Amino acid sequence: MIDLRFSESELEARREHIVEFIRDTAADAGTDRAVLGLSGGIDSTLTAHLAVEALGEENLHGLVMPGAVSDEENMSDAEWVAQELAIPYDVFEINPIVDAFLDTYPEAEGDQLAVGNARARSRAVLNYLVANHEGALVLGTGNRSEALVGYFTKYGDGAVDCHPIGNLYKQQVRQLAAHVGVPDELVEKPPTAGLWADQTDEEELGIGYDSLDAILALHIDGPLSVTATAREVEELTEEAVRRVRGMYERSRHKRRVPPSPEPLE
Amino acid sequence: MIDLRFSESELEARREHIVEFIRDTAADAGTDRAVLGLSGGIDSTLTAHLAVEALGEENLHGLVMPGAVSDEENMSDAEWVAQELAIPYDVFEINPIVDAFLDTYPEAEGDQLAVGNARARSRAVLNYLVANHEGALVLGTGNRSEALVGYFTKYGDGAVDCHPIGNLYKQQVRQLAAHVGVPDELVEKPPTAGLWADQTDEEELGIGYDSLDAILALHIDGPLSVTATAREVEELTEEAVRRVRGMYERSRHKRRVPPSPEPLE
Repeated sequence: MIDLRFSESELEARREHIVEFIRDTAADAGTDRAVLGLSGGIDSTLTAHLAVEALGEENLHGLVMPGAVSDEENMSDAEWVAQELAIPYDVFEINPIVDAFLDTYPEAEGDQLAVGNARARSRAVLNYLVANHEGALVLGTGNRSEALVGYFTKYGDGAVDCHPIGNLYKQQVRQLAAHVGVPDELVEKPPTAGLWADQTDEEELGIGYDSLDAILALHIDGPLSVTATAREVEELTEEAVRRVRGMYERSRHKRRVPPSPEPLE
Repeated sequence: MIDLRFSESELEARREHIVEFIRDTAADAGTDRAVLGLSGGIDSTLTAHLAVEALGEENLHGLVMPGAVSDEENMSDAEWVAQELAIPYDVFEINPIVDAFLDTYPEAEGDQLAVGNARARSRAVLNYLVANHEGALVLGTGNRSEALVGYFTKYGDGAVDCHPIGNLYKQQVRQLAAHVGVPDELVEKPPTAGLWADQTDEEELGIGYDSLDAILALHIDGPLSVTATAREVEELTEEAVRRVRGMYERSRHKRRVPPSPEPLE
């Protein structure tokens, strides 16, 4: 497998670069405060660490938003992270909000994907309700691997003011998280979007993150053809590369602003 | 004042161009269905007319989402539009949903802007709940004038799959609406975002749409300096041009995808 990890000095440079990015983005928005969702997963935990470094924990507001059933383990992790970093936080129940949406449109009841997306979007509305009220920025926690295959909810977890770790592949997120002191249990925990019970990213994506990262680096971000990519990395089949390419293409609309018609003459 | 209206033949060309845009965007997304919010205002009414032409009324689902108090007049207009165009529609109450958000975060109660934004964002979640469940596109109803000054809610009415009338200045929206047969009462009605009682766009923006359009066309989209713009149009002061420029600059973040740090070497 292709190894995308940074050297120690590169790691330090990334960390500083992201910390500055958070500081600059907040300053441009005329604030020094930020709101971020804490899931107990590695992406939001790393983002929280870097945000503390950039803005100070007293200027952050962590939102712990359980929702899907049997989410207790992640939630206690999320609260543990907030406590460990001394970030002021609230625990907000999402289910009553999702229920309010389903009371209004009961036809979607049982539609796992539509309801899961509504859950992610409700979290975004809460992030912004708090951020608007407090004059704060909303920090996203998305990474590059998810972004490129569209593994996020449009206007859900994608609805933020910036993505501090948005240029890191998942394995780089893991590496930087370990580097800044995130404990192994969190670094090694199977990633999940938490939109329904027992969801795991890798099962839903149908591919492991290391394979995904290799395909993204060589074929989507890089210039290698499908065949060359599968040849380069022993563990990859052409079919897997093509599948990732399909996800990348079908999710283009999630990575751009909504289009208008081109101007006429 | 500068006159941005089209000739009759240009008007027809725009109409066809937008109808094709809706059809193509739906086809690219693998659907022939669309959901759109109907407010009884001119933007959504024009968009509905063009969407009927593009996809057929039986493939549309209109969502009438009252919310702010004393909104009865707009809502009866919205229902009237749906009935007139034979678009299947639902009336969804937004207040219980906004209440669910405020039950979760009562601190924002009474914060007009934060709550108004939550209302717009709740509409977006409903649009997508219906669209995801029905495999439909979400059509936006934003115009170019609003977009350029950021007069929309980030991830609220801005959270859509495309903006069919997104390249028309407000006065062009009015002209095209009259052209496709929207009745005068709707064309002439004072525009409102409907986020709270008695809100009107022009009062909130602090400028009339004709003046706004002139400044956008000459100074923001066009090459004229502040002074030249104010000189060109008798009714405009330099101060007004500068104010619009400020709105344009401060709302840049609403017109781009959330940034990530630049790649390092």
